[in-house]
Amino acid sequence: MQVPVASASARASADRIVARCDELAAVSETTDHITRVYLSPEHARANAVVRTWMADAGLDTWQDAAGNLHGRSRHTAAGAPVLLLGSHLDTVVDAGRYDGVVGVLMAIEVAARLGPDHAPLPFALEVIAFSDEEGTRFGKALLGSSAVAGVWDESWWDLHDGDGTTLRAAFTSFGLDPEQVGQAAVDPAALVGYLEAHIEQGPYLEHAGQALGVVTSIASARRFTVRAVGEARHAGGTPYERRHDALLAAAEAALAVERICRAEQHIGTVGTMSVEPGAVNVVPGLATFAVDLRGEFDDGRDRVWDEIADAFRAIGARRGVDVTPTEIHRAPAVFCAPHLMDAVRSGIVSTGEPAPLELFSRAGHDAMSLGLVTDVAMLFLRNPDGISHHPDEFVSAADVALGIDALAGAVEHLARTTTNGADS
Amino acid sequence: MQVPVASASARASADRIVARCDELAAVSETTDHITRVYLSPEHARANAVVRTWMADAGLDTWQDAAGNLHGRSRHTAAGAPVLLLGSHLDTVVDAGRYDGVVGVLMAIEVAARLGPDHAPLPFALEVIAFSDEEGTRFGKALLGSSAVAGVWDESWWDLHDGDGTTLRAAFTSFGLDPEQVGQAAVDPAALVGYLEAHIEQGPYLEHAGQALGVVTSIASARRFTVRAVGEARHAGGTPYERRHDALLAAAEAALAVERICRAEQHIGTVGTMSVEPGAVNVVPGLATFAVDLRGEFDDGRDRVWDEIADAFRAIGARRGVDVTPTEIHRAPAVFCAPHLMDAVRSGIVSTGEPAPLELFSRAGHDAMSLGLVTDVAMLFLRNPDGISHHPDEFVSAADVALGIDALAGAVEHLARTTTNGADS
Repeated sequence: MQVPVASASARASADRIVARCDELAAVSETTDHITRVYLSPEHARANAVVRTWMADAGLDTWQDAAGNLHGRSRHTAAGAPVLLLGSHLDTVVDAGRYDGVVGVLMAIEVAARLGPDHAPLPFALEVIAFSDEEGTRFGKALLGSSAVAGVWDESWWDLHDGDGTTLRAAFTSFGLDPEQVGQAAVDPAALVGYLEAHIEQGPYLEHAGQALGVVTSIASARRFTVRAVGEARHAGGTPYERRHDALLAAAEAALAVERICRAEQHIGTVGTMSVEPGAVNVVPGLATFAVDLRGEFDDGRDRVWDEIADAFRAIGARRGVDVTPTEIHRAPAVFCAPHLMDAVRSGIVSTGEPAPLELFSRAGHDAMSLGLVTDVAMLFLRNPDGISHHPDEFVSAADVALGIDALAGAVEHLARTTTNGADS
Repeated sequence: MQVPVASASARASADRIVARCDELAAVSETTDHITRVYLSPEHARANAVVRTWMADAGLDTWQDAAGNLHGRSRHTAAGAPVLLLGSHLDTVVDAGRYDGVVGVLMAIEVAARLGPDHAPLPFALEVIAFSDEEGTRFGKALLGSSAVAGVWDESWWDLHDGDGTTLRAAFTSFGLDPEQVGQAAVDPAALVGYLEAHIEQGPYLEHAGQALGVVTSIASARRFTVRAVGEARHAGGTPYERRHDALLAAAEAALAVERICRAEQHIGTVGTMSVEPGAVNVVPGLATFAVDLRGEFDDGRDRVWDEIADAFRAIGARRGVDVTPTEIHRAPAVFCAPHLMDAVRSGIVSTGEPAPLELFSRAGHDAMSLGLVTDVAMLFLRNPDGISHHPDEFVSAADVALGIDALAGAVEHLARTTTNGADS
């Protein structure tokens, strides 16, 4: 069996990327863990650092009207169409150091490799470091790439962070003009498409024993906040038959999400839970929690949600607790473009892997926003044990090196198969 | 069937008490709900207000070294033993207006009725308005009555509130000297005992259709904080078989507390729950919750806790989540003194209720602390629907009036049956 081997150039790039991931890990709101959220001082510092790396790679750089950082190759004729490469620089709370970041840094290495010393490409390469993919600060994910896709929603301005700062006020504090956010939008007619490299955030590549994979689609997702309203009462004096315990209703609801999603082969998660009044000697009168639901197809996802909602109603009715979900996010499944998947597959095959794994992404990605306006595809890197959104998140330098060769190979494949449509 | 009827004097006292409960409800850290915690500005204001009412009732007043407010009748010979009457002025968060307060105000009315115009008693009456029964601020309940009982524990000084203020620092800020807390302790040899009137905080008197009841014992209690340590991972990418979801383990644990306590006829409550990292798209890595367990007898309570702890271990083992309880409170059952129960029963019978209900208190009370050093008994007042620790908590003026007659009758019964032991 042939073992994929990365080029010397890619191995050098991968070592640089690992060192840069470590450097960016220190750009955090606290020193003991990694947290870097949208429109924060850390966002500005990360953009400044990555901007120097883009410039070192020979790219023209700018920050757009939504705080995304761009770097574009110089040696392509003006008016050529643009192939976007990118991922994001923001993180969840107490994050790992590779989610998003490694894709941005790989794109920079590929743009450098395919720069002036390389045979001319029929399109310009533009690297984008998206500013908000996780939605950590304002609850709404994909804000950065939504601005680039031109699908910004005016209602988002009133979203607020945990301190009550609105998205509008945060824009202004960061030095951005909310009125100008439309300037961040790309012209879809000028695009070849969007390619994103990302760690898998799941164990399927590791299971298959492969370093790289071709993404076929990105999961369909819905998110809800759920309020369970019961009645706060004395924990000693209230017999069970008089209780309307909001937390026990929420506990049953969380377990129902797991039970139904397991049975239906979907993924559902309750990631938050808070109770009021929240005293050791008071039966909880209110419990609030979030449900994150993902599936490969929109109709399956909706059918599973209906089943979960029915279970919530039954639990609430039995306990005399009003269980009310409110949808806060809905993203359709995004299907990768077959010709871009071909390019990614070709890139992986060029590393020596004859039969790349195809897999659907249960995690959301910036490619979901771009997929609303242009063709997209993704390259996944093996993530040992599938740990992500956790400090133990890891990707090996060897796999990053193979990924760089594959991503560069994908771009070259596209260059060979793309007609320059700039004048069409 | 005879209907109990309160005296005109008691009805006037009850109207005054209801008005005063309304007045004290405004002594709160916020205007939209009632919260009055230990060593707060509201504690000082409540003491000041109640002190004027004690003085109006002809009592000599002082605040002790732990912030409890005392009022003592003047017309008994120096050296006479003391019968303590009392309850507490502090509250839970978003409390009702009667829990504790109504017992303090009833004691003041009774002391006034049995004052200089009444036939001399063989003991002095001392009303105590305890400063901390709920434990809202520092987590540890019964701080005020523990100081009076002389069972203060030096380790409590390092307890801290939600803002990190230690109990020691709060004492100083309130104008109390931590070194002097021992001065608050009564001399048990000088006591006749302690009588407390309190709303039931449960529905059993209402079920029986009786306004008043005799408490036989106060529940044995244990409290625990529990940490469920799993692993934070990406909510989309992590398959169920790779998850160690701390919240789902905690949800099962909370439901196990309910299931086991129902089967064993105990009362167990999970009143708090928090998760980390607490993001909609991250599998919870840590869940923290509290368990409050109460039973009539210590050995039954301990057997039920062992069963719960076994269930926690099984849940944790199955989910790969480390579920670790830490005990934070343990109070033995307190049994009321038969001769004081006789006095309370006699007081209730004097209102026209021929067969008073006897019931055990599932809620904790200041009488638990006093019960460690002297004889105690309690009079319960009907609590419609048993709602307590909630703004809807209620007791009728008619029931308060009957309660005043009963409490005064209990004191008079004791006066008839007590030998003045001042010189013994």
